[in-house]
Amino acid sequence: MKTPIPYYLGQILESVRDEDGGEVAEYIPELANADPDKLAVALCSSTGHVYSAGDAEHEFSIQSISKPFVYALALQELGLDAVRDVVGMEPSGEAFNELSLGRDYRPVNPLINAGAIAVNQLINGVDSSVEDRNARLNEYFSRLAGRDLSVDAGVADSELNHADRNLSLAHMLRNYDIIKDDAHDAVLSYTHQCAIRVDVRDLAVMSATLANGGRQPVTGDKILDADVCRLTLAVMSSCGMYDGAGRWMAEVGIPAKSGVAGGLLGTLPGQLGVATFSPRLNESGNSVRGVEAFKLLSSDMGLHLMSTDNRVGTHPIRSKEEDEDHAVIHLQGHINFSAAEAILYELQGYDLDACRVALDISQVPSLNRVGRRMLKEGLRRLREGGNEIAVIDPDGTLTDRELSDGTVVPLADAEDYHINGEDVRD
Amino acid sequence: MKTPIPYYLGQILESVRDEDGGEVAEYIPELANADPDKLAVALCSSTGHVYSAGDAEHEFSIQSISKPFVYALALQELGLDAVRDVVGMEPSGEAFNELSLGRDYRPVNPLINAGAIAVNQLINGVDSSVEDRNARLNEYFSRLAGRDLSVDAGVADSELNHADRNLSLAHMLRNYDIIKDDAHDAVLSYTHQCAIRVDVRDLAVMSATLANGGRQPVTGDKILDADVCRLTLAVMSSCGMYDGAGRWMAEVGIPAKSGVAGGLLGTLPGQLGVATFSPRLNESGNSVRGVEAFKLLSSDMGLHLMSTDNRVGTHPIRSKEEDEDHAVIHLQGHINFSAAEAILYELQGYDLDACRVALDISQVPSLNRVGRRMLKEGLRRLREGGNEIAVIDPDGTLTDRELSDGTVVPLADAEDYHINGEDVRD
Amino acid sequence: MKTPIPYYLGQILESVRDEDGGEVAEYIPELANADPDKLAVALCSSTGHVYSAGDAEHEFSIQSISKPFVYALALQELGLDAVRDVVGMEPSGEAFNELSLGRDYRPVNPLINAGAIAVNQLINGVDSSVEDRNARLNEYFSRLAGRDLSVDAGVADSELNHADRNLSLAHMLRNYDIIKDDAHDAVLSYTHQCAIRVDVRDLAVMSATLANGGRQPVTGDKILDADVCRLTLAVMSSCGMYDGAGRWMAEVGIPAKSGVAGGLLGTLPGQLGVATFSPRLNESGNSVRGVEAFKLLSSDMGLHLMSTDNRVGTHPIRSKEEDEDHAVIHLQGHINFSAAEAILYELQGYDLDACRVALDISQVPSLNRVGRRMLKEGLRRLREGGNEIAVIDPDGTLTDRELSDGTVVPLADAEDYHINGEDVRD
Amino acid sequence: MKTPIPYYLGQILESVRDEDGGEVAEYIPELANADPDKLAVALCSSTGHVYSAGDAEHEFSIQSISKPFVYALALQELGLDAVRDVVGMEPSGEAFNELSLGRDYRPVNPLINAGAIAVNQLINGVDSSVEDRNARLNEYFSRLAGRDLSVDAGVADSELNHADRNLSLAHMLRNYDIIKDDAHDAVLSYTHQCAIRVDVRDLAVMSATLANGGRQPVTGDKILDADVCRLTLAVMSSCGMYDGAGRWMAEVGIPAKSGVAGGLLGTLPGQLGVATFSPRLNESGNSVRGVEAFKLLSSDMGLHLMSTDNRVGTHPIRSKEEDEDHAVIHLQGHINFSAAEAILYELQGYDLDACRVALDISQVPSLNRVGRRMLKEGLRRLREGGNEIAVIDPDGTLTDRELSDGTVVPLADAEDYHINGEDVRD
Repeated sequence: MKTPIPYYLGQILESVRDEDGGEVAEYIPELANADPDKLAVALCSSTGHVYSAGDAEHEFSIQSISKPFVYALALQELGLDAVRDVVGMEPSGEAFNELSLGRDYRPVNPLINAGAIAVNQLINGVDSSVEDRNARLNEYFSRLAGRDLSVDAGVADSELNHADRNLSLAHMLRNYDIIKDDAHDAVLSYTHQCAIRVDVRDLAVMSATLANGGRQPVTGDKILDADVCRLTLAVMSSCGMYDGAGRWMAEVGIPAKSGVAGGLLGTLPGQLGVATFSPRLNESGNSVRGVEAFKLLSSDMGLHLMSTDNRVGTHPIRSKEEDEDHAVIHLQGHINFSAAEAILYELQGYDLDACRVALDISQVPSLNRVGRRMLKEGLRRLREGGNEIAVIDPDGTLTDRELSDGTVVPLADAEDYHINGEDVRD
Repeated sequence: MKTPIPYYLGQILESVRDEDGGEVAEYIPELANADPDKLAVALCSSTGHVYSAGDAEHEFSIQSISKPFVYALALQELGLDAVRDVVGMEPSGEAFNELSLGRDYRPVNPLINAGAIAVNQLINGVDSSVEDRNARLNEYFSRLAGRDLSVDAGVADSELNHADRNLSLAHMLRNYDIIKDDAHDAVLSYTHQCAIRVDVRDLAVMSATLANGGRQPVTGDKILDADVCRLTLAVMSSCGMYDGAGRWMAEVGIPAKSGVAGGLLGTLPGQLGVATFSPRLNESGNSVRGVEAFKLLSSDMGLHLMSTDNRVGTHPIRSKEEDEDHAVIHLQGHINFSAAEAILYELQGYDLDACRVALDISQVPSLNRVGRRMLKEGLRRLREGGNEIAVIDPDGTLTDRELSDGTVVPLADAEDYHINGEDVRD
Repeated sequence: MKTPIPYYLGQILESVRDEDGGEVAEYIPELANADPDKLAVALCSSTGHVYSAGDAEHEFSIQSISKPFVYALALQELGLDAVRDVVGMEPSGEAFNELSLGRDYRPVNPLINAGAIAVNQLINGVDSSVEDRNARLNEYFSRLAGRDLSVDAGVADSELNHADRNLSLAHMLRNYDIIKDDAHDAVLSYTHQCAIRVDVRDLAVMSATLANGGRQPVTGDKILDADVCRLTLAVMSSCGMYDGAGRWMAEVGIPAKSGVAGGLLGTLPGQLGVATFSPRLNESGNSVRGVEAFKLLSSDMGLHLMSTDNRVGTHPIRSKEEDEDHAVIHLQGHINFSAAEAILYELQGYDLDACRVALDISQVPSLNRVGRRMLKEGLRRLREGGNEIAVIDPDGTLTDRELSDGTVVPLADAEDYHINGEDVRD
Repeated sequence: MKTPIPYYLGQILESVRDEDGGEVAEYIPELANADPDKLAVALCSSTGHVYSAGDAEHEFSIQSISKPFVYALALQELGLDAVRDVVGMEPSGEAFNELSLGRDYRPVNPLINAGAIAVNQLINGVDSSVEDRNARLNEYFSRLAGRDLSVDAGVADSELNHADRNLSLAHMLRNYDIIKDDAHDAVLSYTHQCAIRVDVRDLAVMSATLANGGRQPVTGDKILDADVCRLTLAVMSSCGMYDGAGRWMAEVGIPAKSGVAGGLLGTLPGQLGVATFSPRLNESGNSVRGVEAFKLLSSDMGLHLMSTDNRVGTHPIRSKEEDEDHAVIHLQGHINFSAAEAILYELQGYDLDACRVALDISQVPSLNRVGRRMLKEGLRRLREGGNEIAVIDPDGTLTDRELSDGTVVPLADAEDYHINGEDVRD
């Protein structure tokens, strides 16, 4: 059997293929020469499954889609405080060609050009040479994509010949001491970043890396902290689509970023990354067919950040076995607050007085901080209520078994609790 | 065992109790007389478990927190198009005391006063009397809370005596034909809506109703469509906190709405609702201690819309059994796109040629549209590949077993597939 | 001989008569019923000569043209400080339908509706009844026009039935404590002010009163202080034409104010008032043909505030007679700084040592403060230089002959200086 | 006798000398090193009389005060349409450091930096070399000042080293095709313009040239057309003082422009130019003591554009002589619309039937177009009424004696009308 997802993606492409509105960006010849009929889509799950349709191996320059990733790299390298010194995180409410400096002269967010130039200058240290900074960016984007990416020198050169707007921004940033470097060098470095060549599969995988808390889901490479991804996605969600942010959130509901070459990338945290390519742009500078494809992804595939059924997961208690003096609760899935809440809620309903109770977390791939804290507190309270407690944790997933009272919850062997009892759930 | 969640909520209250900044709203005596030391928090899971701490039964007027719910009711009663005729869905970028009308003179979103007045006028039909509209709103909010709510007549009367701002807005809305009713009556009805008395538990349950796709999780009452909840949450996420929307999304990441009486409500779609109460407000009109409590809920409890670990669920294939000519794949949890993708991904890896294959969905509580479509397409492709197919669906969860080729996938009995084989997963 | 000025004015009307663009204001039936073909112009010199052409006796409601005059009355009654407490004096840069409140919530200037309502409330004291305030305004506008003006009750009633915008403004002004009165009463009074009936001759005379330093040039009635007129004209010049203020100043150069009924009034300080009437309005709410007529008045008649030839007056020394030991300098015209400068400049060039010198101011109608001060200082210095000094001032125009050294310059009789000498000028 | 005007100017300096608020501009060392105590004022009448007090010969860089003059030169060289292609004429409502581009990307007016850079590029043709453009500007400013001006090379160099803001503007102007030249060259040329060294006497004379319709009043050099001066003064009046334009017009009422080196220049059309120097600036970038001095010039000397007594000139009929069959009307002063109106008004009151009438314009220095037209029409109507007409015009001031009916009004000799009659005026 072949999974039908590529077929579904292909159907979406066919649905939008006849949209012939919009114009290819024409401010530089290299973009003006783009084939307006190219059309592609790719999707990558947070588990690293990649699907695509259309001209999925057609390469184009990443352009503004690089912005959230370089912002993430700056956060990773320097931390939020240092990054916040040069750029805010509020929507601009303005088109991409305005200065969009705030009252404190910082660019209002990292997804407008002024903010992106300011953030680019942080990479590899403010004293970095252009060459070293570019090398650092190449290496970073290649790790994100999971393959060696190259720079489109023709696009970069052409952009430099039409860089008055960005030079204007760079000089103004220098004027307000937001950047220190020579304005021309700043634009050189930023232009390099925008000229990196990608295809939609690269973008989908890069996006899935953000969705996956910073671990590249195909290579397994841990590139960014989960906190960095969370901040980056938050900024994408409020500042990513130039105008009509409210309507985009309502109609599409996928934090997204577009590029002037025709790329459009979206991320559903914890779930997947998706990307489209079609070079004709609407007046806001977003890919016309890309926007339509995202609307279909949202409506037909139910992909929407606010969709209330995206997260109605499986119950975290897989099963429970008990006899007169033993009880084993088999857990499953990642344990976060909601999962722990559900586990503890059920535990407090059980009549488990004065018996041995074990939580089996052998099928739990991970716990977050609050999930771990809550499970351990539940165990402590069970013991306080008279139970003997243990965990079945062959892989050491719990990492730390010390409870808040200083005692340590003992490990048990699964076989100690081999009970031929019934599954008491349902 | 008692669940420690109330204890954790209590800890959050203690962490913020010493924040004594801000001022109780003073524009009407009834609010000015509020006890500034009252402090409460409540949380309701999308499964209807309610937890609280502090002055959780202290009642206060709902004020602006009513706005997203009345917007949802208007969407439910009239549909998006009709509602969009009178109100937009873009952030205002402005303080709560501006007119915030867009270029087409519609209020820019339903969470500013002008928008909320316009939306209030839609309820029960634009020709409704004030009394009937108020009765409709009372009934609606009582269903949301799961108990009969009353109106604080003192607050309502006092607001009417200090209603110049709202009267100004109502007259301007009339001037642009956004509302039809007498301006005084419009303000009367809106003021009533704001004076409904709630406690934090009510708010948490109401919020969880949005999180739960419109089904009140305690009473089971289906009040709103899932689409309506999705739109409402999208608007809350982009327009809910008056200014600093980008920073709120980054730091807290919980779509939220505050009220001038001191309430603050937040929703994590699919997960939970949460609410706090503390009457002292900051300059933006948000509860000082409420904002701090939300920051702790986000950081300490990992509650953040962009948190990449909120949705890393259990694998939707609970287990698989097979012998030479039979295979049963036991599924679990809600099947949405991501779950279906994972199932199909695994199916295409199996070597299942020329045998009988059954999907067991007896432990699947629900499928959304795309999940159902994908599972059925997977079955069709298995048969196309030479397999004999069936579903084990004792509760009729699949609802419709017709495949895209017009055939119907047969039902199988679980016992037909009783295989003493190994679970082949892991 | 008949002066050709009415003919010239008629020519201007013919030049603009074919302009059929724009629309009659339609928000109330009484304005919508206006005859769109009516066309009139009038001009009044600061000396009280009135000229007109077209439908000069056609009456219409004064509408917003009342605003600068009521502002002037408030300044006259209360002084600048009290008026500045409720209204600013900056351009709004915005259309007439915005709130245009400044950061301090005061309306930004008195020529937008919000500002005009705030100023109206000052008239006759903030505690005045509507009836008394209206009576005061009636009496004031009648003095300005030099005839009893009436109120168009039909227009006033109709405006009240469509007063949502103004009620909105009044409620917002109350909300910020800019006005104290009931919002409905404030709008009642403001609507009355706008419904006063005038014709273009009335407007021209009223405007010429401002041009003439507050003295009605036909009746001779002194209604406003010169300082009040100066402030009013300054505000008209920067805030009078809703948008395009810079272009209006460049192209037309006549401080002006328009009304929605079709009136347009302009003032050249010290020179004249002019007014047109034609009911069809452009998108900015200004009379289409009125604007064109003003452009012609500016270009064809050289009427422009910045025109450098408007003020190249006659030399203030009419003639000078002298013999061996006497000199009489005959002055003429109003003596302000520039005139006094020219006089003193000439005096310092004369060789007048040790003789009797008299300044003849019998043909000087007036001196302003600095002109008087400079002439007296010139006399003092002549005496200090050895001359015997005197003034010929049969009408007491100088009013105060005490010099800065405490001495008094003596009066001389014109006949004492009857010299059969030559006029030494030129 | 010595004229007291320098003494008065000195008094104004003493009144403001103690104002020690504000800070010397510090963004370049050359300005930061300015002596903060320097203080000067100068005034030049439109007749070329120059007065000054304080450090009147202290030179400083002209900076932004160059802007209106270069705008005037561009208007003179290219006409309004060509200039309007690159710059608007509306107030910016914004501080001097904003881009202030309008919706069409043209700078909103020529007195903000972006507009001034755009206008600078027009001088000497858009293809001019920087050297030739600078030479043209040097020559122009030297003609305006009536002496050879030099450029402060230290200031120019220093500005270039801190020119990020202007480079930012120049790149943005290039981006929108407002300027064609290399951005660095554009800033080089603009910086040169700003570094021209002047003293307050130079500025007063330059300003008086605008006041005088473009004729330098000391040298008599005709540099600019009157229309150009009128437009320039209109733009100065609406855009000259960065913010608070309305309040400046009300309180001071002198169209003005300030420079960051401490200069402040004002012009009263038709009357005079005035300038001050004091390097300490307020937050708006205007000289603190300069602003105070201008307030005193306005209040104490009655210098205010809206002052209604600035233009109450002498009556244009100097005297009238008549006997039975002759009448001579002796006119005086410049004849514009207002003067002609007054003459015609009087003429129509006279009983001059069937006699010879002559207008004596030998004491009329000039007539503007409408004045000439009106006088000739009056003569034509007198003849139509039965009079024999003539003009006494020994200097040919009327230039063209052809009436609208194609006939020519004859010249008369003054002696033909030697009448020993009384002056019939008054």
